[in-house]
Amino acid sequence: MKKILLATTALVGFAGAAAAEVSISGSAVFGIGFSENGAANPFGSTDEAYAIFETYLTFKGTTQSDNGLEFGYSSTIAAYDTDGGLNDDGTSAYVSGAFGKLTFGSVNEASKVAGLPDIGGLSGLGVDNVAEALWAGASHNVNYKYSAGAFTVEASSSVGKGVDSNGVGVKYDTGTYYVGLGYADDTEATTVYAGGSFSGVNVKAMYSDSNTANQKAWGIYADYTTGALTLKAEYADNDIVTDAAFGIGASYDLGGGAALVGGIASVDDNTRAEMGVSFEF
Amino acid sequence: MKKILLATTALVGFAGAAAAEVSISGSAVFGIGFSENGAANPFGSTDEAYAIFETYLTFKGTTQSDNGLEFGYSSTIAAYDTDGGLNDDGTSAYVSGAFGKLTFGSVNEASKVAGLPDIGGLSGLGVDNVAEALWAGASHNVNYKYSAGAFTVEASSSVGKGVDSNGVGVKYDTGTYYVGLGYADDTEATTVYAGGSFSGVNVKAMYSDSNTANQKAWGIYADYTTGALTLKAEYADNDIVTDAAFGIGASYDLGGGAALVGGIASVDDNTRAEMGVSFEF
Amino acid sequence: MKKILLATTALVGFAGAAAAEVSISGSAVFGIGFSENGAANPFGSTDEAYAIFETYLTFKGTTQSDNGLEFGYSSTIAAYDTDGGLNDDGTSAYVSGAFGKLTFGSVNEASKVAGLPDIGGLSGLGVDNVAEALWAGASHNVNYKYSAGAFTVEASSSVGKGVDSNGVGVKYDTGTYYVGLGYADDTEATTVYAGGSFSGVNVKAMYSDSNTANQKAWGIYADYTTGALTLKAEYADNDIVTDAAFGIGASYDLGGGAALVGGIASVDDNTRAEMGVSFEF
Repeated sequence: MKKILLATTALVGFAGAAAAEVSISGSAVFGIGFSENGAANPFGSTDEAYAIFETYLTFKGTTQSDNGLEFGYSSTIAAYDTDGGLNDDGTSAYVSGAFGKLTFGSVNEASKVAGLPDIGGLSGLGVDNVAEALWAGASHNVNYKYSAGAFTVEASSSVGKGVDSNGVGVKYDTGTYYVGLGYADDTEATTVYAGGSFSGVNVKAMYSDSNTANQKAWGIYADYTTGALTLKAEYADNDIVTDAAFGIGASYDLGGGAALVGGIASVDDNTRAEMGVSFEF
Repeated sequence: MKKILLATTALVGFAGAAAAEVSISGSAVFGIGFSENGAANPFGSTDEAYAIFETYLTFKGTTQSDNGLEFGYSSTIAAYDTDGGLNDDGTSAYVSGAFGKLTFGSVNEASKVAGLPDIGGLSGLGVDNVAEALWAGASHNVNYKYSAGAFTVEASSSVGKGVDSNGVGVKYDTGTYYVGLGYADDTEATTVYAGGSFSGVNVKAMYSDSNTANQKAWGIYADYTTGALTLKAEYADNDIVTDAAFGIGASYDLGGGAALVGGIASVDDNTRAEMGVSFEF
Repeated sequence: MKKILLATTALVGFAGAAAAEVSISGSAVFGIGFSENGAANPFGSTDEAYAIFETYLTFKGTTQSDNGLEFGYSSTIAAYDTDGGLNDDGTSAYVSGAFGKLTFGSVNEASKVAGLPDIGGLSGLGVDNVAEALWAGASHNVNYKYSAGAFTVEASSSVGKGVDSNGVGVKYDTGTYYVGLGYADDTEATTVYAGGSFSGVNVKAMYSDSNTANQKAWGIYADYTTGALTLKAEYADNDIVTDAAFGIGASYDLGGGAALVGGIASVDDNTRAEMGVSFEF
């Protein structure tokens, strides 16, 4: 007695008169990972090879008020083979309108304007984390965002948790290229972001400078797509780690939201690799 | 690839032949809370102001047997910004028919016939809890309810948990007014309830007397609705707290299941306030 | 504002063009259990009688790649009255095609070819567990299965958890009868399985021999269905327990996926019984 939900396109015709709606979507990755000396084995064993398994099920609910404001909810339940439980991978609620968008719950820290992608495509190889190392601060629970044309400004804060942590960010995004600037006051970290697309090539870069820690971090990512194949490369370094991190990855689009994905990287002078499949539903 | 669920009205036509069905609905509140000296800060910090965020996602499943019994399931997943996890906010299953309704799991304690509403509308200001203080006993896992016309009788129990805890309740509800009586045997607490509606005004009151604790608790609530605006007031006291609790609240219906909500109260001689939005989907 | 999902049959017509789909289904059992001296009271109290309550909500998501592979996700959220939380009752993801089916996550151990059913029908009386006692080994996270006609072969392993645990299984199933063989290398346990159906009677049997433990375990189950009524009997023994386990059960189909269920058994020389209802939606 299973109940099948229709895909979006088939349902829109019916949903016209309904102010409130709920949607469900999800994704999963699985495959094999390799970590030299088991340094990053997610099971905590010293096995160099391990199974990778992550799933995400997302529920969204929205309604519109009479004056045209949109109220929305989003929550993602994640499962990992490594813990056997169900995890809150982010739950938030928002109200949006001409004034912008106000979000509570698990929100984006505003200084994280445009991070770098991971090149592995499964649980991640972590080169991007080296570039994003000075991002870290207290997690925020309130975010305000306003967009006008190509400009987006964002501010976020931790409200009531007994810590003083705030962030701001601004982004100019033409669709073809973007530049951005973010500032987190708890680490006094300023980050600049830039990226663009041309002839099948995507490039993304970021550079952070933390005044509190007197440390810097930076990274650059590029991918190239030809037909179903996307090739990726990434390089990142910071003043905390001994060795720069770098790696390459690839994904092959199988259609229907499924892809073969994988990559290999050197992080903390340890070789890490992963290979498998990802899909959406 | 999100899947959108249709609203109820659009679907009923199709569901006619299907005995079993599943439904999803939800609600969320978010806003700002204030607690004098941080006495009720949900993050455990001493900050007087804090972000409020609560979401509820409810799944219901029902089926009908050939002889006309209805079997049902209900479960609510809640997320709060204060713990970062997913919580079971009540899961139960029932069978109902001409004999009444038998529910297992997270059930209502039968003596809780008609509690008082909260006046804040977000995570709650807690005036109602002062009136309901003598309700508390062991939580029950089996409930039986039978309705005939305006009368409802209910009995509940904790079965197998190693405690002896039972409750009964009776309610007479004409739709315009109600009176009720509940008894919990573990605290030997008797509670009387009454309420009614007239000319846009709702009034609800309750009075408890626990023989075991030799304590009393009581409270009264009233609201008045004019157009989209509802104004609320509540007063409660008991023999446990030093100071009576009282407060006022308001909600403004925005349409589509969304509302502006808020209130201010004195609980344990501490000022508490909250203001924000609530919505359903 | 609840959203009702249609039953499968009503939706298939619309879903034709959509590669990805999500379905929701569930089941619940509730009733009363009895355990002599409280030996198996799930609340940990010494009460001999206790409430039984278990619910299962299953989400499935699938998509098809352009080359005809099927990618799928399945996750079940379980609630039990005994712990008050939401539990991961099994989350997995797979890819299947002409090559067979590869599953990651919470997978079947391949040596568990065809276990025995429980006779109680609610939370279970446990006679089957006595027959399956030598099954146990490390839980696996990767499973590969291939079917050709009546033959199915399966292999599974624990990959990356720091243990060496693998299993294989083979089954020949005509639909009317089956035979099977499984081997788990961590316990060096070989298990043979056989069963069949004739004239309303189902019989299932299994026999395990663990070389590592130098122990044996075995069990036999039979049921007989006449109209809405199914009668069940089971007997199991092993070299670990002092006393053989045995019991009888019955279920009465109410239609619409609902049934009256119950049984009584002797396990470890303790009488256990349960009676209640089960339903699907």
